[in-house]
Amino acid sequence: MAQKKIRVIQYGLGPIGIETAKLVTKKSGMELVGAVDISKDLVGRDLGEILGLDKTLGVRVTDNGKALFAKTGADVVLHTTGSRIRKIYPELEEIIQAGLNIISSSEELLFPLKENAELMKNVDNLAKKHQVTVLGTGVNPGFVMDALPLFLTAVCQDVKKIHMERIVDAGTRRYPLQKKIGAGMTTDAFYEKIGKKELGHVGLLESLYLVAEKLGMAFDDVIETIDPVVAEKAVKTQYFSLKPGDVAGIRHSVKGIKKEEAVITLDLRMYIGADDPHDSVHIVGIPEIKLRIEGGVAGDQATAAVLVNSVPVVINARPGLATVKDLPAAHFRG
Amino acid sequence: MAQKKIRVIQYGLGPIGIETAKLVTKKSGMELVGAVDISKDLVGRDLGEILGLDKTLGVRVTDNGKALFAKTGADVVLHTTGSRIRKIYPELEEIIQAGLNIISSSEELLFPLKENAELMKNVDNLAKKHQVTVLGTGVNPGFVMDALPLFLTAVCQDVKKIHMERIVDAGTRRYPLQKKIGAGMTTDAFYEKIGKKELGHVGLLESLYLVAEKLGMAFDDVIETIDPVVAEKAVKTQYFSLKPGDVAGIRHSVKGIKKEEAVITLDLRMYIGADDPHDSVHIVGIPEIKLRIEGGVAGDQATAAVLVNSVPVVINARPGLATVKDLPAAHFRG
Repeated sequence: MAQKKIRVIQYGLGPIGIETAKLVTKKSGMELVGAVDISKDLVGRDLGEILGLDKTLGVRVTDNGKALFAKTGADVVLHTTGSRIRKIYPELEEIIQAGLNIISSSEELLFPLKENAELMKNVDNLAKKHQVTVLGTGVNPGFVMDALPLFLTAVCQDVKKIHMERIVDAGTRRYPLQKKIGAGMTTDAFYEKIGKKELGHVGLLESLYLVAEKLGMAFDDVIETIDPVVAEKAVKTQYFSLKPGDVAGIRHSVKGIKKEEAVITLDLRMYIGADDPHDSVHIVGIPEIKLRIEGGVAGDQATAAVLVNSVPVVINARPGLATVKDLPAAHFRG
Repeated sequence: MAQKKIRVIQYGLGPIGIETAKLVTKKSGMELVGAVDISKDLVGRDLGEILGLDKTLGVRVTDNGKALFAKTGADVVLHTTGSRIRKIYPELEEIIQAGLNIISSSEELLFPLKENAELMKNVDNLAKKHQVTVLGTGVNPGFVMDALPLFLTAVCQDVKKIHMERIVDAGTRRYPLQKKIGAGMTTDAFYEKIGKKELGHVGLLESLYLVAEKLGMAFDDVIETIDPVVAEKAVKTQYFSLKPGDVAGIRHSVKGIKKEEAVITLDLRMYIGADDPHDSVHIVGIPEIKLRIEGGVAGDQATAAVLVNSVPVVINARPGLATVKDLPAAHFRG
């Protein structure tokens, strides 16, 4: 007996949204029934063409989400428009009020930092009222520096410290990522942007606090540092040509401090030409766990995968705003 | 406000049961309220003394589970008496009928192989009837060769093959483990025991089929091989002295075959004096994932940890027989 397909709307058609929508088209159990984007270049065009498929999908991009949700029944919206909860809140509100579940790549949605707590509480209340589930997830945050280390602690009798590293060769990543890590800037310009909070990775603090909450850890202090990684030799990507001394990328760290010691450290380095890219988790505990993922989990492909693999989990979850650790872990299904 | 402590009964006081019960005594949110074992050496003694604590616990070991369950209210039973569902079924039945949740180290309980399907279905029905949750878990099976690789596939758009290795230096492990891998035997005696199914690791097939089911993979064939690993030089553990040529342990592999290719391989080597112990998972897919845990996840400590860390998850789960992938992943909580 044929199972009913899960009806999916893609909201946001930047590089991650396109990768996500393409993956949905490959899933036999899912069907793309709508797409939303504000870009004038995309509105009205067939999604198949935008995704680079060799066929049309009969789904035209619209910039009017509300009208789409009203006329097109769907089970879930894959939402990939932005990092900041303040920016995306009106979009989430519209989707939830239409009674649709949401899986979002918004980094801030992973876990409520103090400054976002009120808006996130609103999302939670609204989701419960409309009986839908909202999940913020991804690879980082959402997997390598939060869900994975927490998952590993299942085999620990005690956890004293966790040290996580993610070293990404940004030269292999999409343009917006290379841009947001400051590639090609002078170090002066870099620090100026840092001062204005225009550079840096969103989500490290969310990962830190998610891990801490689940482990039952409290910090005396949290230290965040953002510094440039400078190119030592000339290096060229599809988008940037760096001279020695140019900014190649970023080193962004957060540390949860307890009794003057870093008990949880997240050390993220994303730069063009990074040697030895990898993800690692070191749990100082009983037993000790030293995990390493060679090459690291490839960001863009993996982010699309996590969003799509989370669909069955979110559809079956209790209403409300969930975190990746409240739900059964997502997994691939062929 | 003080939260009510979770009331725990420890069922089975072999090495794993003792490690598990000790860990429960360290958890501020849990309380050991009973202990069951059939050993005449243990019955009637105070659990604190058996665990090697420097205090009594006011809990005496009994061999009458039924009477204990009737007079002592508890939330969950940590069950560590055996691997085989046929052997432990009457114990499970008694616990479930008393209305208690179960977390068991029984390897067969992880996932229903065909020959165990009927008994497992009975467990599931009985658990639903009495509104309790039953979970089979552990480190292997339960974590390194099933839950972990499945967890990793969350970031995969496609999974073509998975290769898992676990190399354990059995010289560091408990006596029952060293014995069950054939340490100290001649290779002839080893193969004789294999013929009688008296040797080998229980749980590899359970892990294989759990992974396959969750990934939606079907096999044309499954190949299982068990061979001795022979000591190349003299080696001594707390329990065994091996001469060169003696059996040092076991290599036990299972492979799920599709179109004449191994699409899922579990390769377990447990032997005294193993070089380079580790756990590894290699996912051939999009993206490719190469994970390695240096030294491997230490078996006995970790098994106790998984059982105890699963308590909050199981207590909050829907009634029935669950698998480790149906529930939110367990994690440490301090």
